[in-house]
Amino acid sequence: MIIVMGREVTDEQIGAVVKKLEAAGLKANISRGIERTVIGAIGDERQLSEEMFTPLPGVESAMHIAKQYKIVSRESHKQNTIIDIAGVPLGGNQVQIIGGPCSVETQEQMDLSAKFVKEAGCRLMRGGAFKPRTSPYAFQGHGVEGLDIFRKAADKFKLPIVTELMDARQLDAFIEYDVDVIQIGTRNMQNFDLLKEVGRINKPVILKRGMSATISEWLMAAEYIAAGGNHNIIFCERGIRTFETAYRNVLDVTAIPVLKKETHLPVIVDPSHAGGKAWMVPALSQAAIAAGADGLLIEMHPSPCDAWCDADQALTPDELKKLMGTLGAIAGAIGRTL
Amino acid sequence: MIIVMGREVTDEQIGAVVKKLEAAGLKANISRGIERTVIGAIGDERQLSEEMFTPLPGVESAMHIAKQYKIVSRESHKQNTIIDIAGVPLGGNQVQIIGGPCSVETQEQMDLSAKFVKEAGCRLMRGGAFKPRTSPYAFQGHGVEGLDIFRKAADKFKLPIVTELMDARQLDAFIEYDVDVIQIGTRNMQNFDLLKEVGRINKPVILKRGMSATISEWLMAAEYIAAGGNHNIIFCERGIRTFETAYRNVLDVTAIPVLKKETHLPVIVDPSHAGGKAWMVPALSQAAIAAGADGLLIEMHPSPCDAWCDADQALTPDELKKLMGTLGAIAGAIGRTL
Amino acid sequence: MIIVMGREVTDEQIGAVVKKLEAAGLKANISRGIERTVIGAIGDERQLSEEMFTPLPGVESAMHIAKQYKIVSRESHKQNTIIDIAGVPLGGNQVQIIGGPCSVETQEQMDLSAKFVKEAGCRLMRGGAFKPRTSPYAFQGHGVEGLDIFRKAADKFKLPIVTELMDARQLDAFIEYDVDVIQIGTRNMQNFDLLKEVGRINKPVILKRGMSATISEWLMAAEYIAAGGNHNIIFCERGIRTFETAYRNVLDVTAIPVLKKETHLPVIVDPSHAGGKAWMVPALSQAAIAAGADGLLIEMHPSPCDAWCDADQALTPDELKKLMGTLGAIAGAIGRTL
Amino acid sequence: MIIVMGREVTDEQIGAVVKKLEAAGLKANISRGIERTVIGAIGDERQLSEEMFTPLPGVESAMHIAKQYKIVSRESHKQNTIIDIAGVPLGGNQVQIIGGPCSVETQEQMDLSAKFVKEAGCRLMRGGAFKPRTSPYAFQGHGVEGLDIFRKAADKFKLPIVTELMDARQLDAFIEYDVDVIQIGTRNMQNFDLLKEVGRINKPVILKRGMSATISEWLMAAEYIAAGGNHNIIFCERGIRTFETAYRNVLDVTAIPVLKKETHLPVIVDPSHAGGKAWMVPALSQAAIAAGADGLLIEMHPSPCDAWCDADQALTPDELKKLMGTLGAIAGAIGRTL
Repeated sequence: MIIVMGREVTDEQIGAVVKKLEAAGLKANISRGIERTVIGAIGDERQLSEEMFTPLPGVESAMHIAKQYKIVSRESHKQNTIIDIAGVPLGGNQVQIIGGPCSVETQEQMDLSAKFVKEAGCRLMRGGAFKPRTSPYAFQGHGVEGLDIFRKAADKFKLPIVTELMDARQLDAFIEYDVDVIQIGTRNMQNFDLLKEVGRINKPVILKRGMSATISEWLMAAEYIAAGGNHNIIFCERGIRTFETAYRNVLDVTAIPVLKKETHLPVIVDPSHAGGKAWMVPALSQAAIAAGADGLLIEMHPSPCDAWCDADQALTPDELKKLMGTLGAIAGAIGRTL
Repeated sequence: MIIVMGREVTDEQIGAVVKKLEAAGLKANISRGIERTVIGAIGDERQLSEEMFTPLPGVESAMHIAKQYKIVSRESHKQNTIIDIAGVPLGGNQVQIIGGPCSVETQEQMDLSAKFVKEAGCRLMRGGAFKPRTSPYAFQGHGVEGLDIFRKAADKFKLPIVTELMDARQLDAFIEYDVDVIQIGTRNMQNFDLLKEVGRINKPVILKRGMSATISEWLMAAEYIAAGGNHNIIFCERGIRTFETAYRNVLDVTAIPVLKKETHLPVIVDPSHAGGKAWMVPALSQAAIAAGADGLLIEMHPSPCDAWCDADQALTPDELKKLMGTLGAIAGAIGRTL
Repeated sequence: MIIVMGREVTDEQIGAVVKKLEAAGLKANISRGIERTVIGAIGDERQLSEEMFTPLPGVESAMHIAKQYKIVSRESHKQNTIIDIAGVPLGGNQVQIIGGPCSVETQEQMDLSAKFVKEAGCRLMRGGAFKPRTSPYAFQGHGVEGLDIFRKAADKFKLPIVTELMDARQLDAFIEYDVDVIQIGTRNMQNFDLLKEVGRINKPVILKRGMSATISEWLMAAEYIAAGGNHNIIFCERGIRTFETAYRNVLDVTAIPVLKKETHLPVIVDPSHAGGKAWMVPALSQAAIAAGADGLLIEMHPSPCDAWCDADQALTPDELKKLMGTLGAIAGAIGRTL
Repeated sequence: MIIVMGREVTDEQIGAVVKKLEAAGLKANISRGIERTVIGAIGDERQLSEEMFTPLPGVESAMHIAKQYKIVSRESHKQNTIIDIAGVPLGGNQVQIIGGPCSVETQEQMDLSAKFVKEAGCRLMRGGAFKPRTSPYAFQGHGVEGLDIFRKAADKFKLPIVTELMDARQLDAFIEYDVDVIQIGTRNMQNFDLLKEVGRINKPVILKRGMSATISEWLMAAEYIAAGGNHNIIFCERGIRTFETAYRNVLDVTAIPVLKKETHLPVIVDPSHAGGKAWMVPALSQAAIAAGADGLLIEMHPSPCDAWCDADQALTPDELKKLMGTLGAIAGAIGRTL
């Protein structure tokens, strides 16, 4: 922690800061510059908060210099973590494409989806049983019944399943249906009680980035899960909110190399929700893999025009198959496999 | 709903759109312009979604023209709704200032806070028992014990209390301690399961705006509560996330007149979280009242430097009292009372 | 300047940073913490840039701690600067409302506008002769002829004039027509060659904030003007660009107290361009004055529906007059006059 | 143009809108829905502005449905435009990497840079003689002398040159030194007078995206150049401003496919300014090519640590050479060449 004192600081004011540091068990290094005096905290600064110092007289600003996240940081764990999802490795050299529809509609639709996902060469499947919808009057998902439909469809093709958890009270059902990967959606990235709950179990968790979450807040949200004991966390970039209105979100590809530097955990990308239109998905998928993503969450529907939600962002089975070919070539270009 | 067809649209493509409209029970008005053909939906468009049409061949874009929210809209209820909070009216001519500390720390701190809040002339009190913190290692609030402390302190001064609910499983405790106003925090604005829960009870709810929620999403979040039967909803603007780093959030004063036009429900402002620094609170509070806010949530602590959280944004008791004087004068200037 | 070294820093890496600091004539203070070593620069850090250090081995980050702006900072000049605009003081206790149409259309329209501006009680008038339009096919303003029309209309009512300069090559005409205040528009806030030109003359300059300029960049843009010798600079907040689409821009009222703290120069607000709708102007104007703005730029047109540009944001003469009454009461509530 | 009327619209109000449309030479289609009446304009809507209708009584909103840009739109020109830069094609199947230092420092530095750029396999070179700097006290570039140095260095290796124009008054020097591609920087994207000037000459122009410019504003800025007669325009995405502080800008890869759909002109990307750190450049470059960019502007310096500006974002000659190899493989994966 660095505490910057204002221009006309007094010895008394410096003394008060030093005293507060010492009371917290740290030491102070005082550097008197020409324009500013800077006090450096020596010791474990994670127990300090900036606001412990900023209201003190004479203090201009205070800032952490060490990262606030610990378990998820690469500093604490140098090698890439490879997460085992029912036998499918995520975070290693092989890139994983998770395909499937936005929402579980019918058994037939899910059976067909699973077949097409498998045929395209994907090893994991996605689908939503609980749906976070902007409007209370929109289809909210089939809930537990949807989990049942999904499980049956995926089992026929031996595909591990990924699906979203919206509320801690649904967790028992997720365990009952043996959901392979629990997804925490963008609107719940800082639903701290929910994060604590998934931190207590042993399932892999995909943590989607909040719509306007900074990289640092996102890492701290993952730290909530990790602090509970569950280290099987997968970051998923899904586009951020900006001023641009020509597309739904702005896919933040820079987050990929930055996360890979800051954390040892896998990083995947959701190009479907990012752009919001099926025709943008190939370009965004290619960019994500080229930038180093460990996987993708791609929406595919047997018949997009008839989808019950997000119809305009799902690929057709043929489009997915074709894209898989290109993604394989790009993965190869950077020394990875698909 | 307006459906804009691309430049080289065919009769067949127009026919498919018309058919989909008619299947949903609406009629179509076709307007063939020189550059674009536009199809207007005649009927109740709330059951349509834009994505029902955008994936169809020949469609360039689709947009709702009617509002998606209903119960909370001023169209459905012309007069201002005045919410009765244990006898204190919110949303009428009298402006309400809700004072109190960021978090419940000790019985003594809360007793003192309540005394100062009352003395300053506030009629409602705030304080957090469950705290949403960015870091899992930070103080998470006293929980249910905090509710008990808060209730006791406020009762001594006959102050109705406002406190944040973070998880549906805590709701019973909120009812047991007879929390007067339930606050839904910015990170939970789209925690739809939580919104549904508070929609089922009869308590006033303060719905804080999500960090990057649009006005429309915010109104739809309120509609979730209203759709459950609870119409006692108070909007609270608390600053939005932008590119600016000189202050924590940007207080969006424009939201005040815009909400007052769109909804009949009260609108309050939290100047403390918006700016993040105590010295900004007076200017922001004055701006909010001058722009037509029905109330404010202001942080005050008996001894800000010793506060356990957000220490740099709490006013001292004296600062609050002084500010109340200025706010009274501004309220008077626009024909309201404090 | 603070230079934070990575976790596994070597003595050699520290030595290289110290050497670079010393080569620039500064001294180094080395603070070895448990997780990070921090090197503080002692001396005038304005000549250093962060990028001088960040590419060096072992450096994690570097940050300025002193402000980069100098002449415009309150540190360098404690009292408020009051700018004299042809006898009208801006920046003192009296608030100034600058009224007038978006663009100069005809002599009759400007004569009428000047009359209404004067009658409403404004002491300064605005109007655009050179117009920055998003489309090359839109009306681009009357140019020099517009300056002539404006000057004549304003002179009849002894109103000093404010108008926008878009290109250095137009400056001679601005001097010829004795424009009282030169406005630099939001799109030119970082047109550094233009800033240098208005820095060489002696006219008051209104510097509008760039659409997504930080407070710090804005102060640095003003420093460009000041560094040329012209200290008659007025900051004008006009709304920033965010994710919100319900209104054109988000008026950043927090910028008002923050600028008043950082600089001695006057701060005004343009509520008309911020919201983009006439009906929002009263609430935003009231908020700005209550937050401490020294003045406002308000669009008024004798007949808004017939305005050639921005028709939907101009007040009618009657609306302006009524608003002036409310603004006077708010100014009084905070101890100022109108 | 679609004009949406409010809920309780009268025949008189509809009549006023129709009259205004007819006065502008268009016809009206009236569609009376249950909740809203919608008036569609039939005819060339480019001459209409939304604000012509929004202030009229009864009007709720007005929106264009045809694009406002014309010459630059793909609707007006279906094939990709390939721009010839002194024999080097940009916009065709071959991807172009434009390498070079941030600023022209010395003849020796530029000679070395040109040599390394050529050796890495680039066919075009970049370098700044006029530098837009945030601070007036920072190095502002060598100006005309810099053009001379750059020209000499590039000529030795037969590399066409790209350099930034900041002010119309410098244009003669650009023509004298036969600059091959004129770059308009992010801060000048809406410097309309400058756009008009480069619209009058015949040189290729790189138009960088404004820091917070929407795709639509960017296309309109290009239309300013095109309307003057110069159709040799290259779009350059360079990162946009968002809330994220972990990196300088957010590279908007979605802009690549969206622009390729909306315009026939080439689209390139500047990964160096986007991320702001050299170590991010490979991932961002790879993403940009994979997403379909026609070229890249990459900063390389013979000795990055000694660079006079943006030292932390330049690649070394070796890093550039290595990156070229990977980019070639990615270009191949999507059927292009490097």
